[in-house]
Amino acid sequence: MSKLPQIGTSIFTVMSKMANEHNAINLSQGFPNFPVDERLTSIVARLATENVHQYTPMSGYPPLLNKIAKLILDSYKRVVQPETEILVTAGATQGIFTTIQALIKANEEVIILDPSYDCYEAPVLLCNAHAIRVPLNDDYTPNWEIIEKACSIKTRMIIINNPHNPTGKILAEADFIKLEKILEKYPDLLVLSDEVYEYITFEEKHISAHTRQELLNRCIMISSFGKSFHITGWKIGYVVAPEHLMIEIKKVHQFLVFSVNSISQVAISEYLDIVDVTKLGKFYQEKRDYFKKLLEKSRFELKPCEGTYFQVASYKSISDEDDVTFCKRLITEYGVAAIPISTFYANGKDLKLIRFCFAKDNATLEAAAERLCNI
Amino acid sequence: MSKLPQIGTSIFTVMSKMANEHNAINLSQGFPNFPVDERLTSIVARLATENVHQYTPMSGYPPLLNKIAKLILDSYKRVVQPETEILVTAGATQGIFTTIQALIKANEEVIILDPSYDCYEAPVLLCNAHAIRVPLNDDYTPNWEIIEKACSIKTRMIIINNPHNPTGKILAEADFIKLEKILEKYPDLLVLSDEVYEYITFEEKHISAHTRQELLNRCIMISSFGKSFHITGWKIGYVVAPEHLMIEIKKVHQFLVFSVNSISQVAISEYLDIVDVTKLGKFYQEKRDYFKKLLEKSRFELKPCEGTYFQVASYKSISDEDDVTFCKRLITEYGVAAIPISTFYANGKDLKLIRFCFAKDNATLEAAAERLCNI
Ligand SMILES: CSCCC(=O)C(=O)O
Ligand SMILES: CSCCC(=O)C(=O)O
Repeated sequence: MSKLPQIGTSIFTVMSKMANEHNAINLSQGFPNFPVDERLTSIVARLATENVHQYTPMSGYPPLLNKIAKLILDSYKRVVQPETEILVTAGATQGIFTTIQALIKANEEVIILDPSYDCYEAPVLLCNAHAIRVPLNDDYTPNWEIIEKACSIKTRMIIINNPHNPTGKILAEADFIKLEKILEKYPDLLVLSDEVYEYITFEEKHISAHTRQELLNRCIMISSFGKSFHITGWKIGYVVAPEHLMIEIKKVHQFLVFSVNSISQVAISEYLDIVDVTKLGKFYQEKRDYFKKLLEKSRFELKPCEGTYFQVASYKSISDEDDVTFCKRLITEYGVAAIPISTFYANGKDLKLIRFCFAKDNATLEAAAERLCNI
Repeated sequence: MSKLPQIGTSIFTVMSKMANEHNAINLSQGFPNFPVDERLTSIVARLATENVHQYTPMSGYPPLLNKIAKLILDSYKRVVQPETEILVTAGATQGIFTTIQALIKANEEVIILDPSYDCYEAPVLLCNAHAIRVPLNDDYTPNWEIIEKACSIKTRMIIINNPHNPTGKILAEADFIKLEKILEKYPDLLVLSDEVYEYITFEEKHISAHTRQELLNRCIMISSFGKSFHITGWKIGYVVAPEHLMIEIKKVHQFLVFSVNSISQVAISEYLDIVDVTKLGKFYQEKRDYFKKLLEKSRFELKPCEGTYFQVASYKSISDEDDVTFCKRLITEYGVAAIPISTFYANGKDLKLIRFCFAKDNATLEAAAERLCNI
């Protein structure tokens, strides 16, 4: 008998595989298809022959911990202690899983907003804890009244994802104020803030949990170099948490993976000296706008996108198939892969919406748009 | 309140850190200090500028899965299906954690032999399951009578480690026959076979679980490229399991880490075409013998070592301090770091034994031996 009976193969695996089989343009799974910064690849090429092939310390390569602390200081004016408050993980997913395993006990409740990225629920279930799904409003803002009603002394954690995958929404200051009000009532309630797209924001910068004084002592922040440096395959992310929580997270990390790929850590720590993350938003904003322009003549209706490299689109005027069926036909008949938004809902809610990843070179976006405009 | 209240910082972290602080020769944590094969590092240097920086498929880079299947075929004449029976993990530790999370339910029991490597118990506890420690015999062979007595219908898994860290012991055919007898009585009992030192065996090759027909359908086998290719920092290992178990393991893997460092996977898959793993035993046997010879005039009594890169030594004739105290003094007074064997026992049993790692270049072994001979 399975511990995760409801869980099948992730939609990202299914769609990327189907895209490959049908030679479709893959705008489904979120990963860039353009070359990585040559300054970073040349660091790797040089490091390969250096002495970087054995275990780093358990929490991370110490110079990388220092550079992460500096990045957080530069980005958010927050002082973080590298030795006690930062953990380098094998991608953000491992950071999230480890955090939940460390902090959530059997029968406790974790609030997950609906829709949301697919990696939050399984670790909660594996703790024999309960995932309480609370729907976002129709405009994808959190409904803090419903969230508050869902809270009780059994609630141990609220998971927020900001900027939000798949909807591209960012949280407003008013959201944080309401969240902090709820936290006041529940002193043991924690916040897991998944900010893997923190540097991919457009007209407005998102408000990071790092900048919220009221959260710092009870918030676990998740980030990802895969997203920030176009290296999703490297699987290097990090967790920031106050020491009393980090002690528990490290206990699990120690026996879950012990340490993380050494070459990648050393390379990123060097790269952090020369890369300018503040340019990332502009880079992806241009992609978003270009993709939008290319689709102007299509029958898709594009939704607002404030951050992430995902564009939600309605195909209501094209078909009334459910979104999974539509996405399959999009691959087989039109040669473009996307993700059906229903798969981000606990109950598979079908709103005739799909998600495109626009982290692609312009030629790919153009080729995809040409096909999409012909539907 | 902690989910892992008994767990502190791992002994490997403590000792490596103390070794660094005191500038001691570090024979504690198991990692090689000699250069990695240039053929492997030049593969990495070349790959750095190629298109290897995005997510691999969830189970692993497909060519690597094929090469692993071939390695297992060549090594053990076992046919394994790459797509359904192999999973590439972020090191063996992640493979072990993921397997236990996937297969062990609350209140079930897992038998862990005592002494054993430190990463088995925490994942069992995090499942709200019970770790049942069964002592090895004084010669480090398993006591199958006690193991059988410890078994009941609540027992879900027996963990074996072959070759065994820290004792260097390998299992005999008689051990497998007795294990298989027990399994006959308990149809739901699984075996987790941690064989990360599978290619580091000396006078005799160990018997792999891969070669035991009776085990194949209920055994999860764990391996590590870190150990086999002197790249402990890369954190790439793999799990082999029959499909009905692998389905469950992959469900957890998908949400625990999703996929594993891409460059390392591509590099190892190329390297597997040219490397000869059968030479590894001879390489380390020479190190073992050289280290033994260097310590001949010391007051340490070296125990038999059939595999792994660890040498257990008794310091009875030197001191009657407990082994943790002795190891600390060994660092501060004599400048050599080792691991106290008591830390591998659930109850911290002190037998005046310590573990040296001999995966070091000869100059390091000589320098360490000179210090150890002066005690
Ligand atoms: C880990 S595969 C999914 C990648 C991703 O973040 C997404 O497509 O949403
Ligand atoms: C993961 S650190 C421990 C390395 C090792 O396998 C050992 O020293 O036993």
